[in-house]
Amino acid sequence: MKPGKTTLVILIMCCSLFGFAQEQSKSHNLMPVPASLRFNSGRLAITPSFTIAVKGQSDARLLSAIDRMARRLEARTGLTFARGLVSDAAAATLVIQCQSAGKAIPSVDEDESYSLEVSNLQAALNAPTVVGALRGLETFLQLVGGGADGYSIPTVSIEDKPRFPWRGLLIDIGRHWQPMEVVKRNLDGMAAVKLNVLHLHITEDQGFRIESKKYPKLHQLGSDGNYYTQAEMREIIEYARMRGIRVVPEFDMPGHTTSWFVGHPELASKPGPYQIERKWGIFDPVMDPSNEQLYELLDGFLGEMAALFPDAYMHIGGDEVKGDHWKENLKIQAFVQVKGLKDNHGLQAYFNQRLSKILTKHGKKMIGWDEVLHPDLPNNIVVQSWRGPQSLAEAAKKGYAGILSSGYYIDLMQPGWQHYLNDPIPENTTLTPEEQKLILGGEATMWSEWVSPETIDSRIWPRTAAIAERLWSPREVKDVGDMYRRLAVVSLRIEDVGLLHKKNPEAMLRRWIGADLGNNNIARDMTIAEIKPLLAILEPVKGYRRGALQKATQFTPLTRLADIAQPDSERARNFASAVDRYLHPTSFSNGFGSDPVGSDLKGWKEYAAGANRMLFPKPPPPSKPDARSDNDQTVDIDLQLYIRSPLLNEEAAPLAKDMEDVCDIGLEAYGFLRTNKNPGEEWRDAKLARLIDAAKPKAAVELMIIQPVLELVIAAAEPEKHRSLSSEEWKKYVRSLAPPKRQSN
Amino acid sequence: MKPGKTTLVILIMCCSLFGFAQEQSKSHNLMPVPASLRFNSGRLAITPSFTIAVKGQSDARLLSAIDRMARRLEARTGLTFARGLVSDAAAATLVIQCQSAGKAIPSVDEDESYSLEVSNLQAALNAPTVVGALRGLETFLQLVGGGADGYSIPTVSIEDKPRFPWRGLLIDIGRHWQPMEVVKRNLDGMAAVKLNVLHLHITEDQGFRIESKKYPKLHQLGSDGNYYTQAEMREIIEYARMRGIRVVPEFDMPGHTTSWFVGHPELASKPGPYQIERKWGIFDPVMDPSNEQLYELLDGFLGEMAALFPDAYMHIGGDEVKGDHWKENLKIQAFVQVKGLKDNHGLQAYFNQRLSKILTKHGKKMIGWDEVLHPDLPNNIVVQSWRGPQSLAEAAKKGYAGILSSGYYIDLMQPGWQHYLNDPIPENTTLTPEEQKLILGGEATMWSEWVSPETIDSRIWPRTAAIAERLWSPREVKDVGDMYRRLAVVSLRIEDVGLLHKKNPEAMLRRWIGADLGNNNIARDMTIAEIKPLLAILEPVKGYRRGALQKATQFTPLTRLADIAQPDSERARNFASAVDRYLHPTSFSNGFGSDPVGSDLKGWKEYAAGANRMLFPKPPPPSKPDARSDNDQTVDIDLQLYIRSPLLNEEAAPLAKDMEDVCDIGLEAYGFLRTNKNPGEEWRDAKLARLIDAAKPKAAVELMIIQPVLELVIAAAEPEKHRSLSSEEWKKYVRSLAPPKRQSN
Repeated sequence: MKPGKTTLVILIMCCSLFGFAQEQSKSHNLMPVPASLRFNSGRLAITPSFTIAVKGQSDARLLSAIDRMARRLEARTGLTFARGLVSDAAAATLVIQCQSAGKAIPSVDEDESYSLEVSNLQAALNAPTVVGALRGLETFLQLVGGGADGYSIPTVSIEDKPRFPWRGLLIDIGRHWQPMEVVKRNLDGMAAVKLNVLHLHITEDQGFRIESKKYPKLHQLGSDGNYYTQAEMREIIEYARMRGIRVVPEFDMPGHTTSWFVGHPELASKPGPYQIERKWGIFDPVMDPSNEQLYELLDGFLGEMAALFPDAYMHIGGDEVKGDHWKENLKIQAFVQVKGLKDNHGLQAYFNQRLSKILTKHGKKMIGWDEVLHPDLPNNIVVQSWRGPQSLAEAAKKGYAGILSSGYYIDLMQPGWQHYLNDPIPENTTLTPEEQKLILGGEATMWSEWVSPETIDSRIWPRTAAIAERLWSPREVKDVGDMYRRLAVVSLRIEDVGLLHKKNPEAMLRRWIGADLGNNNIARDMTIAEIKPLLAILEPVKGYRRGALQKATQFTPLTRLADIAQPDSERARNFASAVDRYLHPTSFSNGFGSDPVGSDLKGWKEYAAGANRMLFPKPPPPSKPDARSDNDQTVDIDLQLYIRSPLLNEEAAPLAKDMEDVCDIGLEAYGFLRTNKNPGEEWRDAKLARLIDAAKPKAAVELMIIQPVLELVIAAAEPEKHRSLSSEEWKKYVRSLAPPKRQSN
Repeated sequence: MKPGKTTLVILIMCCSLFGFAQEQSKSHNLMPVPASLRFNSGRLAITPSFTIAVKGQSDARLLSAIDRMARRLEARTGLTFARGLVSDAAAATLVIQCQSAGKAIPSVDEDESYSLEVSNLQAALNAPTVVGALRGLETFLQLVGGGADGYSIPTVSIEDKPRFPWRGLLIDIGRHWQPMEVVKRNLDGMAAVKLNVLHLHITEDQGFRIESKKYPKLHQLGSDGNYYTQAEMREIIEYARMRGIRVVPEFDMPGHTTSWFVGHPELASKPGPYQIERKWGIFDPVMDPSNEQLYELLDGFLGEMAALFPDAYMHIGGDEVKGDHWKENLKIQAFVQVKGLKDNHGLQAYFNQRLSKILTKHGKKMIGWDEVLHPDLPNNIVVQSWRGPQSLAEAAKKGYAGILSSGYYIDLMQPGWQHYLNDPIPENTTLTPEEQKLILGGEATMWSEWVSPETIDSRIWPRTAAIAERLWSPREVKDVGDMYRRLAVVSLRIEDVGLLHKKNPEAMLRRWIGADLGNNNIARDMTIAEIKPLLAILEPVKGYRRGALQKATQFTPLTRLADIAQPDSERARNFASAVDRYLHPTSFSNGFGSDPVGSDLKGWKEYAAGANRMLFPKPPPPSKPDARSDNDQTVDIDLQLYIRSPLLNEEAAPLAKDMEDVCDIGLEAYGFLRTNKNPGEEWRDAKLARLIDAAKPKAAVELMIIQPVLELVIAAAEPEKHRSLSSEEWKKYVRSLAPPKRQSN
């Protein structure tokens, strides 16, 4: 965007509003927000003479965290600090004092609290454990900002501790293999926002991803060679420990186990042979709980894993058991009868009881998905809920500890605010304080049907930072606007720890366009410039819809538009707000003086029109030479651009057409509104129909500005209705008139 | 860039010219250009039913290369192919036939030739070795393009083999440590452009980067913990072998050895203790060739390394021995006398003779830098020349084999065309054909004083692809324009193997700007939009100049403007061409009809002016309210933007000022030229002075459009002179009038 006069004025006004707001509220960029903080006046300068001292407890974990923090601070400021610690604590810029190393193995009981006192002269970070100090170091780094005299941090008093002790991210390495570097960089991202549990979903129908020395056929035949050796897994566990993060392994049983059966068909409820599953879904293969050999192998294998993974918990999955193979197997049905197990659910409970004993024998506590809850199981198990806070609360009432994952399914591409407002213990909870203690926290779940090592970061970040805040900060911290403001900063800063959520989508766009237009620099750069602003208002389809729209297996390359597009479009969100402010003005928003609605629509329309000139499903008929201006080759040339990138054309062309039309409609409606003209019912119905059509996903992505444009259209055609309704009522009314087909917002 | 009417017309015209040229010459995107190729008519379609068959030799190396190629092809096209090979070769899309596995250990004698025959029905890749097939697979992938019916490759006959057998990239892991992932992704980049030697510069004053089990103090005390274990190094060697790449280790001796002496001061010529060197330069510490203990340790250590590195060659460095410590050491001087060695050069030759015997004992051939050349050394050593083709030719005349590195110093930030035209055996060589055979090839050298793992890719790529072509393709392939056209494509495609040369500079820009403006989205996005086009015409200073301008050590963060800016600016190069075409029109270029000179200058000026409104070294004095338009806060707001990013302001503000002025001057000159007005001498001298001042680097970067603007200014003021000179003469004349202070082009 070139800074023309108009945009500069907008810029200046926005800044002045921002600046004003900041001065008033001392707004900050911390995420998650600390339990308690109080800003004072003045700042502590960050200069080349920045030094650090450690008092009390010091160990390799603390020293290496300090070193990483200092290097990140250097990178941001361009300053070079002296290496190592200084011994004179009184003279140091930052003094860190820990009372203890904390637990030898990261634990759900770890004390993660810390306090940070910053004066004009010194910052003092105090913590009962090294892990607390690690959390405080991230806060320290987030406080750094620029000022007239260089870099500094504000003077502040922070007392901080997490609301929940279990704040996790599940990474599914079963469905799509995720190599070491993916896991490591995401551990660094987790540490940056104070998450403390990496839940590795290690085995699935589509892959068995850990080396078993006792039963090597498991990983050798079940993984296509994509598994972690035990040495590599130890490396991950140590990398996590250094960042105060637990690693909880999940071995999903008795369903989701096809990959186990490739090497060990005798464990299954139906005779083999088995092959690694390549499709997505819920499949029939399931372990045979009536087979004593199974418990023998599980005792051996889980014993091996119990020695490998130091965490107190082991996750046994337990979800989505179809049971068809149980029903078809007479021996198993006889077993159900003999043992008096009633049904498949009873059979699974029997299996879980056996598992529970194996885990206890190997010193592990059991955790499983909702389905493991059964009266026959001891209540020392932990339930991970994919069903919802309600189901979690019910478990708590029965005395089970639980963690929430429902509402944190980041693979479903929902906007961050939905996850953010999803509270493991909602305000209106009916749980007693004692019962509430059983709600340990929650986990974001990165299921990997639709993610590759290239795309996974952009599916996890930055939205997971909003979930991290929900799980760390007080319940009262829930201002969505402020969350998004801070999330934009966090999203940029976590690039410093190596996350690729911003880098990779850009590179995928270059691959998509560049490789085929590469040797025409002008066409290449222009096409990318056209597509980028349009891409910014597209999102991948939500929920489980992509699977219905696009056939895919484990082998499908994830390099298409739906993989490049990002969830939670900032531009679309801002546009919706602008439309809302325009249609329901307040004295504050009126003072803005700028016209974001019109300029957004005009800008997008221009880009879409440009893209439409280059991308079209079919070459247009040649027009007559005399109708042309100064050259005769327009059509051939367009065609040439088009044919160079078939994938681009196939996926982007229909969307560009939609976008141009939607913007046209929006501008037309906006024009009617500004001139107080009523376009009439016929116009309204025609535009409505076109918008509803444009709301249908193409290439498994959806255009995110339809709802606000609908609001403009209906407001133009029904001015009295519009004036009579509040902002909320108006949105609801418009939705009732033209429900965009399953489009989520 | 929004596609306004003008730009679209330019686009169309450029495309039409391109399209025309392509039809004529069947221009392609291959890099390096094959030894022989002939395009036929028709194309072989790449569809979801794409299959591969292997006839003859098949092994893990071939199969894994085929798999990698197929996955990259899937990623680009979005198509899913069936996994694995098909057995019916006649029905396969691509049939690969190798005669042998090739050398067990990658060797300088490897046959890398291949032929690729593509018909409308099938592609046949034939090669005497698997390595040849690997080279052919990269060619196959480079041939893929888009067409009206989807993806395809043109029918073609290629017979290909390299001009030189030694085509290398040196990575200096001594000065700045480069971890495993850096080395691996660069090996993939090397394979993509058919380079075949990774030369690892492993030991330096600033770091000893390999584990020695025999002498562990070497790496333990000499590396800050940043070294490769032997297992890791074996992993690198195997990764390289899988791509047909040799790994040649360099242990630089007897100088450049400070890091050795931290653990083993007894090896030095002056008593210790020693510390790892942190500064850059040529230092005094040097091994003591008179000490028998030294040869004992080297025998042990190099024996250990000879077992670790399978390559036939071992590089012993031998460069830049200062010798001051030899002179100061009476024992050493006595040794020189007793042995009759004449001087320090003689002493180094003695040392090299001893080394040579140790290497021979362990079955390795010696390679060293220019300085190792001495009549006392056997002529089976290989000389790596940093002095130039002349010195290389002299060595060849004496019977020494050699490789060229002079002219391929990619750390010096010179443009790609300079490296491209640097030929190991120039056309005018006086060497006999037999002597020419001694010139084995060349190596690009990535010395690492100024590169971090974050910046190294953008210093290596894409320029090294041009060097790769020089070393592979026939000498006659040297059209610089065509090289740059293809280089732009290659640069995009090698992102697919994981190189970060495009991703990281973008992310560094976001860190530099975004982290401090992050919570003001508009300011952030706009500032980045302002800076990017300006950044595109800046380059880091060339040669060894940065060291003179910026004080730095091994600890200096490399995250500033000179680290973000890229060498070999495409935009500046295109502008210089446009000015040249304008000042020296031909009938062809006149037909263009567009005005790139004016539009470039106007565009940059607008961006620079925008940046200048936001970035300024000091707040301007407040102007009177009545002089303002509709708000009173411009100054305060600008100040607020400015203070948020002190580093941005410090480095970018002076350059933005220069840019605005230079563009103004250029536009003024251009106006005079278009209206045939002579601005006179006084004007000329004033503008010249300003331009010479703007040519001085700031923040260790330089503005790359000064020379063409100078050409416009002088042409306006001296129209007769201008008309009387050819393009070449004119450039020379302008340079003679206003030699930009050490600015290289």
